[in-house]
Amino acid sequence: MKRFLSIDDVTDPVALLNLARELKENPYGQKNLGGNKTMGLVFFNSSLRTRMSTTKAAQNLGMEVLTLDVTSDSWMLEFGEGVKMDADKAEHIKEAAAVMGTYCDILAIRSFPSLVDRDKDYREIVLEAFAKYANVPVINMESATGHPLQALADWMTIEELKQKSRPKVVLSWAPHIKALPQAVPNSFVQWLSLADVDLTITHPRGLELEPKFVGNTRVEYTQKSALEDADFVYVKNWSSYHDYGKVVNDPDWMISSEKLSVTNDANVMHCLPVRRNIVIADDVLDSSRSVVIQQAGNREFAAQAVIKSILDEL
Amino acid sequence: MKRFLSIDDVTDPVALLNLARELKENPYGQKNLGGNKTMGLVFFNSSLRTRMSTTKAAQNLGMEVLTLDVTSDSWMLEFGEGVKMDADKAEHIKEAAAVMGTYCDILAIRSFPSLVDRDKDYREIVLEAFAKYANVPVINMESATGHPLQALADWMTIEELKQKSRPKVVLSWAPHIKALPQAVPNSFVQWLSLADVDLTITHPRGLELEPKFVGNTRVEYTQKSALEDADFVYVKNWSSYHDYGKVVNDPDWMISSEKLSVTNDANVMHCLPVRRNIVIADDVLDSSRSVVIQQAGNREFAAQAVIKSILDEL
Amino acid sequence: MKRFLSIDDVTDPVALLNLARELKENPYGQKNLGGNKTMGLVFFNSSLRTRMSTTKAAQNLGMEVLTLDVTSDSWMLEFGEGVKMDADKAEHIKEAAAVMGTYCDILAIRSFPSLVDRDKDYREIVLEAFAKYANVPVINMESATGHPLQALADWMTIEELKQKSRPKVVLSWAPHIKALPQAVPNSFVQWLSLADVDLTITHPRGLELEPKFVGNTRVEYTQKSALEDADFVYVKNWSSYHDYGKVVNDPDWMISSEKLSVTNDANVMHCLPVRRNIVIADDVLDSSRSVVIQQAGNREFAAQAVIKSILDEL
Repeated sequence: MKRFLSIDDVTDPVALLNLARELKENPYGQKNLGGNKTMGLVFFNSSLRTRMSTTKAAQNLGMEVLTLDVTSDSWMLEFGEGVKMDADKAEHIKEAAAVMGTYCDILAIRSFPSLVDRDKDYREIVLEAFAKYANVPVINMESATGHPLQALADWMTIEELKQKSRPKVVLSWAPHIKALPQAVPNSFVQWLSLADVDLTITHPRGLELEPKFVGNTRVEYTQKSALEDADFVYVKNWSSYHDYGKVVNDPDWMISSEKLSVTNDANVMHCLPVRRNIVIADDVLDSSRSVVIQQAGNREFAAQAVIKSILDEL
Repeated sequence: MKRFLSIDDVTDPVALLNLARELKENPYGQKNLGGNKTMGLVFFNSSLRTRMSTTKAAQNLGMEVLTLDVTSDSWMLEFGEGVKMDADKAEHIKEAAAVMGTYCDILAIRSFPSLVDRDKDYREIVLEAFAKYANVPVINMESATGHPLQALADWMTIEELKQKSRPKVVLSWAPHIKALPQAVPNSFVQWLSLADVDLTITHPRGLELEPKFVGNTRVEYTQKSALEDADFVYVKNWSSYHDYGKVVNDPDWMISSEKLSVTNDANVMHCLPVRRNIVIADDVLDSSRSVVIQQAGNREFAAQAVIKSILDEL
Repeated sequence: MKRFLSIDDVTDPVALLNLARELKENPYGQKNLGGNKTMGLVFFNSSLRTRMSTTKAAQNLGMEVLTLDVTSDSWMLEFGEGVKMDADKAEHIKEAAAVMGTYCDILAIRSFPSLVDRDKDYREIVLEAFAKYANVPVINMESATGHPLQALADWMTIEELKQKSRPKVVLSWAPHIKALPQAVPNSFVQWLSLADVDLTITHPRGLELEPKFVGNTRVEYTQKSALEDADFVYVKNWSSYHDYGKVVNDPDWMISSEKLSVTNDANVMHCLPVRRNIVIADDVLDSSRSVVIQQAGNREFAAQAVIKSILDEL
């Protein structure tokens, strides 16, 4: 693989999925592959799971890991062309990315959207700039519009747990108090469209995702009917794409045990962090239905499969 | 060892002490023990010695180390049961600890007390929650009420330096301008009660530690008589346990060379950081009496002994 | 080498330069040299290139790296003698440096100047205190008045690119909106004075560097005539040494392609970060003249040569 910005960079997603599952069985079998190779992790936003799982994935392959937090005000990057840099930004991405690419064999980037300027967010300014100027392969650790490492781990979790060949998977919007990105649902729909699953999206009217990601996936506006006979319920809040960044906090959409009674004893998934009793009720998260920890654990092997695929072609 | 929250988790403290001393002689002899194992360090409070010494201890045993700072406002954890998480806390300890336990083979936690709500602090909410939900062994890197890694290093330092079989050890309270926890003196008394030493605590009236930690240890309210013939003087400020968190800053209790003249040429110990000329005078810290650097150095081997004991049973 | 605070610690700078160039050819050939050795990086100021390149240099030699950021307010150090520490500083450098030296085999320090108190800055309080109290070799990762790792990488870059035996090298002051240290130009002049180059400094009147660093190097106050026939133009802003810390932001001194027309097709260098269209114009940085990325890449091998030289004598 040459880079991993989105599913468009993956020639054979099923092979990548299978590689992730194999690596989970034997994480340390390729420890020489990354010897004398360095992974750079660049965080423009805070991270728990992605930081830990991607670091571990690289270390499992024998790589050194350099982590750079760009979350403080002390070092802000300019992304514009031709700008006279006389304000708060001390360095241009052209130099910053090229320098990091000099020290690192692979760069992984996390950069959330503004949720204010949709056009700018959906152009993926930060991720694309790194891909353009770093001169080394770039991995998306959650960008403005996508989170493909999460989607690969989600798919892997469904494959591990499914009880039938073509399970019903429902992505259900849920309430939240803050404006959250569309990155996780965008990638989930995009990746699971490739899987042998019966996929439904359910959300209140007005919360439609960008059509490019939804494709032909069925959308239902009634949560209850969408949940019927579901084998997996993937719960996630996102703010509005159309009324960009608008927060919708409708408590009727919270997932509870009672609501899940119409499902086929569904497993409940969430990418975490999850606000309890806002997004999902305690009675679900504290039950054996919840597979959120297994899902988070699979992040390590999703990342490892991607890194291995890139190292193979370095 | 299954975990290391306090001395209660240690079956044979003397064996642990001896292991620490052996590891100091040969720190890299067990470098294969931690191969393909990951130590997670979680800091809710800042740290110099604990961060460096625990990292090095794990690396000496061949482990990878993942460090997570939870000191910023960007990621706050909920510890309550049944809470509707509609405020500033984005994740519950149930998920956070379980996820970290998925990536790490051992987790080490630092979490200071509030010094406002004694009952809550002494229930060790944070440490106990990690122990409950992480599904991997948890190490205390200084909790609300105890600092057992420090106490083990302190005991080790006394064993290395003692000139007689049963030295007199005095824990002397000293002034400070801020409210400091009782964790260090609590653990020091608890651990040194097991050692073959003659232990005395001295502090102004009103600064009594929690009886559970003091046990039968002698308490003197006159510093001068307590110091007489001491072989070791362990200096430490703590805020009030009874008038919880109250700062006492009585300059008459500062340790100086003159005060130490009644001792048996005592070595002076402190867990650091120490405010000079408030807690201990320059003439003590700049003299050969001070063994604070040796004491800090032993933190590495105390941690290594604990980690090794846990790895042995993984 | 016993330490690396400045060029005064280097017996044979040409040998060090050659070592850096050899290590670039074969960075991993000495991976056993640093086994079971720990490098401590202490940052009092933020860092991208220095952090990444020094970490990688140490890892290339097989060392473990412990990084400590002292940039927050949570842990401030006292450097004064005899101070009653009753204010915001919780630890004295005497203890802090000695403790870090206990855990680390080499310490590398970054500490910028105040640009307010020249006398204090030029006494190098922080760097000298670490050198005095750490009990292990100390490396300067940019101090108040010097940046020798940068100068070594700069020299290496000129050696790699020069087309004639004695190239003309011009250090040109350039405008900036903030007060920047004199550390980079000080060290550049000091180190390049040893090289087989024809060195000129050009800057507006009043921006003379400290005479100790300038020595006999030619200074021209007219940028245009200084640039004539230059083979290398090293661009850098610094604030005033004489009117200490005063910002000069004269846009006539910005380096552009047009200005470089009088040079011998000069390569343009800068230590980075660089503000585009303030310090250097886009048309220069986006052209093949710019060698700033190669220069930044050489930081890794400059650091590795210094670390190797120190490890050789440990």
